[in-house]
Amino acid sequence: MFVRNCWYVIAWEHELADGALLARRVLDEPIVVYRTSSGALSALEDRCCHRHAPLSAGRREGDDLRCMYHGLRFDASGHCVEIPGIAATGAKLPAKLRVRSYPVALHRKWVFVWMGDPAQADVNLLPDNYSCDHPDWRYLPGYLHYDTPYELICDNLLDFSHLSYVHEQTLGGSVEIAQSHPVIEALPRGVRVRRHVPNVPPPPYYAKVRDFGGARVNRWFIYDFVMPGILLMESGGRPVGDAPDDDRRAVRLHSCQALTPETATSTHYFFQQAHRADAGDAAITRGIHEQLLVAFEEDRRMITAQHRNLAADAAAHMQVLWMDAALVQFRRLKERMAREEARGGVGEVSG
Amino acid sequence: MFVRNCWYVIAWEHELADGALLARRVLDEPIVVYRTSSGALSALEDRCCHRHAPLSAGRREGDDLRCMYHGLRFDASGHCVEIPGIAATGAKLPAKLRVRSYPVALHRKWVFVWMGDPAQADVNLLPDNYSCDHPDWRYLPGYLHYDTPYELICDNLLDFSHLSYVHEQTLGGSVEIAQSHPVIEALPRGVRVRRHVPNVPPPPYYAKVRDFGGARVNRWFIYDFVMPGILLMESGGRPVGDAPDDDRRAVRLHSCQALTPETATSTHYFFQQAHRADAGDAAITRGIHEQLLVAFEEDRRMITAQHRNLAADAAAHMQVLWMDAALVQFRRLKERMAREEARGGVGEVSG
Amino acid sequence: MFVRNCWYVIAWEHELADGALLARRVLDEPIVVYRTSSGALSALEDRCCHRHAPLSAGRREGDDLRCMYHGLRFDASGHCVEIPGIAATGAKLPAKLRVRSYPVALHRKWVFVWMGDPAQADVNLLPDNYSCDHPDWRYLPGYLHYDTPYELICDNLLDFSHLSYVHEQTLGGSVEIAQSHPVIEALPRGVRVRRHVPNVPPPPYYAKVRDFGGARVNRWFIYDFVMPGILLMESGGRPVGDAPDDDRRAVRLHSCQALTPETATSTHYFFQQAHRADAGDAAITRGIHEQLLVAFEEDRRMITAQHRNLAADAAAHMQVLWMDAALVQFRRLKERMAREEARGGVGEVSG
Repeated sequence: MFVRNCWYVIAWEHELADGALLARRVLDEPIVVYRTSSGALSALEDRCCHRHAPLSAGRREGDDLRCMYHGLRFDASGHCVEIPGIAATGAKLPAKLRVRSYPVALHRKWVFVWMGDPAQADVNLLPDNYSCDHPDWRYLPGYLHYDTPYELICDNLLDFSHLSYVHEQTLGGSVEIAQSHPVIEALPRGVRVRRHVPNVPPPPYYAKVRDFGGARVNRWFIYDFVMPGILLMESGGRPVGDAPDDDRRAVRLHSCQALTPETATSTHYFFQQAHRADAGDAAITRGIHEQLLVAFEEDRRMITAQHRNLAADAAAHMQVLWMDAALVQFRRLKERMAREEARGGVGEVSG
Repeated sequence: MFVRNCWYVIAWEHELADGALLARRVLDEPIVVYRTSSGALSALEDRCCHRHAPLSAGRREGDDLRCMYHGLRFDASGHCVEIPGIAATGAKLPAKLRVRSYPVALHRKWVFVWMGDPAQADVNLLPDNYSCDHPDWRYLPGYLHYDTPYELICDNLLDFSHLSYVHEQTLGGSVEIAQSHPVIEALPRGVRVRRHVPNVPPPPYYAKVRDFGGARVNRWFIYDFVMPGILLMESGGRPVGDAPDDDRRAVRLHSCQALTPETATSTHYFFQQAHRADAGDAAITRGIHEQLLVAFEEDRRMITAQHRNLAADAAAHMQVLWMDAALVQFRRLKERMAREEARGGVGEVSG
Repeated sequence: MFVRNCWYVIAWEHELADGALLARRVLDEPIVVYRTSSGALSALEDRCCHRHAPLSAGRREGDDLRCMYHGLRFDASGHCVEIPGIAATGAKLPAKLRVRSYPVALHRKWVFVWMGDPAQADVNLLPDNYSCDHPDWRYLPGYLHYDTPYELICDNLLDFSHLSYVHEQTLGGSVEIAQSHPVIEALPRGVRVRRHVPNVPPPPYYAKVRDFGGARVNRWFIYDFVMPGILLMESGGRPVGDAPDDDRRAVRLHSCQALTPETATSTHYFFQQAHRADAGDAAITRGIHEQLLVAFEEDRRMITAQHRNLAADAAAHMQVLWMDAALVQFRRLKERMAREEARGGVGEVSG
């Protein structure tokens, strides 16, 4: 059950360059996204209302889309503006003939679609993914496709104890991460997690981009995880003994990650991990990105294996443990919002 | 729901050369077809009545088939004529032991099976696919496999407005095809469609086989589309101004195409497009065939994409438009015949 | 419906060498098997009780398994002995937290798991696969994976009439095998089959490993086929006229084969065919093994084709014939034992 009154990331902005018709399925609905000549965005149902051919297999004609099966033409708001040959039949173009149009927003390089009631689409609900587009931060954009439900990847991001194990050789590097206790705080549409891990070796990941000269570090992970599945995180490490405002030897990162269900069992994953522009060159940017890809494959392998077990026996019991606090809280929030939407509520959470 | 009291094309005649045992599934039933030494045809259930091994994985012994799992032998009418070792048990060969035999007919290079009540198999219902075997016509035989329901391909063939779009660069070449209005006439077991498209550029397809020297042409498409899914079409183009009986610069084609459901979601497609024997050599024959293959891939790509959308949401509404007249008529006829068969009727249509 | 109170072969012993964590699904349950440092065996549910990640994707720590998703550690009996970070929460390790442990036995190179009630696990029910580990016998171990239900492979092994047809060019070589009549005897947990085939040419299989100089042979196949699907067979051939105790020109083989359902529609197949150690060198051992692989591919091809027909129409009638006596008897025994288990009985057969 999905929360619909949400902004879901459907693309990186650069995927819409050169007039592209980008086809992507979200919450099991086929959508085509493109930029009009004015630079505005259009997100339409990727299914002609006539015989259900995908409009993304069609042709742009100015800002319109021509279905290339039988020639219906739709404007950027989804209205059918031409049916070949209809004039000779004496009939008029049916006024209401259209494909669904989705509210769409571009916000700091991410393209979002609103999957619920268009009247409730609210740009104030767009997440603060500032490092995606900020002169102080540098990154390379990432995308992965998962053949697992998006909930399992949310779980993964809500419990960083896995860094000690899944990412032992990359992002983790010490069991103290799993042993440390995060502070968890409810947000209106998500969860805030703060985790400090003092006096540990720098993770192999850091070591690839910076030489700590044998020093141990204090690490931190502070993030919001908000509907529908968006992580906004400050993290870093600073040599033990360095003052909190001394960034000379610190690693400071900001990461934005968005999970968008493609179907009930597959997921789009958009992500980046940015470093301070004044702390690293293009090689550092690339190094961080490449390390992240290695680590995210570690996640994908584990979550896919987990999903195989779950798919074979969905009824088997899962033992809830202390480290599940944040993920249980987020799952409950999501279920509550989805239920309220189903009851016709506005999708807002009262308490 | 399929109409069963029909002749379905199961093979091109040449596929049965050299004593081949051809295995092909029709209406989700496994069938093996072969020629006996007298030249007659046998179409049997491709499933031994003992442990259900396919007889097509067996061996011809004269005109009989030996199941190569446990050795049962069947004659060309499907009767079991040998069970290894049964004599020593004191038992006799059970008189009624057999696999199903299908009425089968060879008609102008196409091999047909009758999937309904054998008592109703009527060679008068074989379609008039004359150009498949006629000295005045030349072609190369074609076969495609579709991973879509056969109904979607019937729809495609019953609305040629798609030529302007799907086949813009091949069979189409002008939007006037989609804008022209066909005359549609009911047939006892199908639909007749006549479409004239005057004064258009020759399609790219023609241009590959003939030089029109810049002339525009009048085009025509006259076809019967009959149960279960067989297209018999005269089509062509003649330079504007040439007399109707002046064939010196005309392109005249005859096409036979047959759709046979393999399963509810996959289809066998047998086809040819023939030209007049006195208007073209082997290079022309090959050129027409190759162009047709290019165009049929255009169809397959579009219909497969359409099917993906339909499969994901079978309940979504399809807007019926003017150009759907013939396909709606054919779908209704098919449903009516299938319902009457299900009620035990003879599968004939009263009105 | 599977009989659970049985020993199922899950691995060849050599698959557990070098501390391997072997993951294999049995009766659709994920299992991980490994040897502890003392040489004992452990077979655990391959699914962490926390978030269901497979323990086989984890790490051995001594004789324990560490789940490498969130770090839970289990001992070789399946008890959870560590939860990272739990101490700081003030909570204790839940005493009953564990994954399921399966009774496991190593018996003559085969590793067995007991899938039913652990209290009923009885090593006296292990099959007598003596040639798998005996100085008088030599073989190479085999494993095949089938994408078919295990019942179809049981059927195959319970009716050797198929040797004349499926294995005409390998194990068979004469129709007399199919025409010969085996003597079938009920066992408490299986069926005994004795088949003698006098005065036939040596099978192509034998001819590859021994020169019979044109002599015809008397062949025999004497086997027990016992729960859950284990074949224990003496077979051989001796030149016609040679005395029954004259082994100079005889081929004498002993074969052990075990079928283990992976899921309802896929199967693990463990097998070997051994020859007398005093009748052949390593080249003979290899030759027999390679011939067996060729023959077992013949079976797999046929059974997979049979399964395709059955999967498409599970309700279609199978005609029972005289040669099905043993397989019908075994299927009935299996159904009866499974029903009795389901009723809470001990899985023993009364009559």
